[in-house]
Amino acid sequence: MIGGKTMKVIEMNEMEVAQTPHQVDVRKLISYKDATIVHITLEPRESLKMHVTPVDVCFYVLEGDGIVEIGKEKETVHKDELVFSPAKVPHRLSNESENTFRFLVIKTPTPTEETKIL
Amino acid sequence: MIGGKTMKVIEMNEMEVAQTPHQVDVRKLISYKDATIVHITLEPRESLKMHVTPVDVCFYVLEGDGIVEIGKEKETVHKDELVFSPAKVPHRLSNESENTFRFLVIKTPTPTEETKIL
Repeated sequence: MIGGKTMKVIEMNEMEVAQTPHQVDVRKLISYKDATIVHITLEPRESLKMHVTPVDVCFYVLEGDGIVEIGKEKETVHKDELVFSPAKVPHRLSNESENTFRFLVIKTPTPTEETKIL
Repeated sequence: MIGGKTMKVIEMNEMEVAQTPHQVDVRKLISYKDATIVHITLEPRESLKMHVTPVDVCFYVLEGDGIVEIGKEKETVHKDELVFSPAKVPHRLSNESENTFRFLVIKTPTPTEETKIL
């Protein structure tokens, strides 16, 4: 219960852009023991850096098309596709299209170690 | 690793509609120990039944506007809003608008008990 209320509504657009080594629009929406959910926007030609997350991650594409690289595999993903990326395998997302690419990052559980940029 | 591949891509539109007591378009996208992620579409005047989930749940609005009820609280939610609904508090979502309402349900961890319809 937060501030006497049970329901907690988080507006993505009102959340602060986090300072990360990726230098793109990363917004943490919520974090509790069992999950951390982050919203990322990649504009055309923007990219995350290859990195390793210590827990399993799902990406859900909200808008546009992007490239997902996990280990040595690479695929183009589209709106309303979910990608499962297992813990500890290096991954990166990038936008090689002409339009905005937005996705949710669902980390389960919330990592106790840092994400490692490669 | 699934079928020799590390990456797993799930297309929401290709997933089967589950048979549930809610009798609306519910599609399970993925389920593993730490999370179950489900996609739900509510057309105008459709609604879930009030129910209790044994674990914490986040709802992320993908399209349209809907009503979320959690316990005695009720709010209208919009695209790109995330709602946190704590374990064991009855909740329901409904669509009183004239347009499609779609959202993700992120249950963490995957419940070992059944959801209870009230």
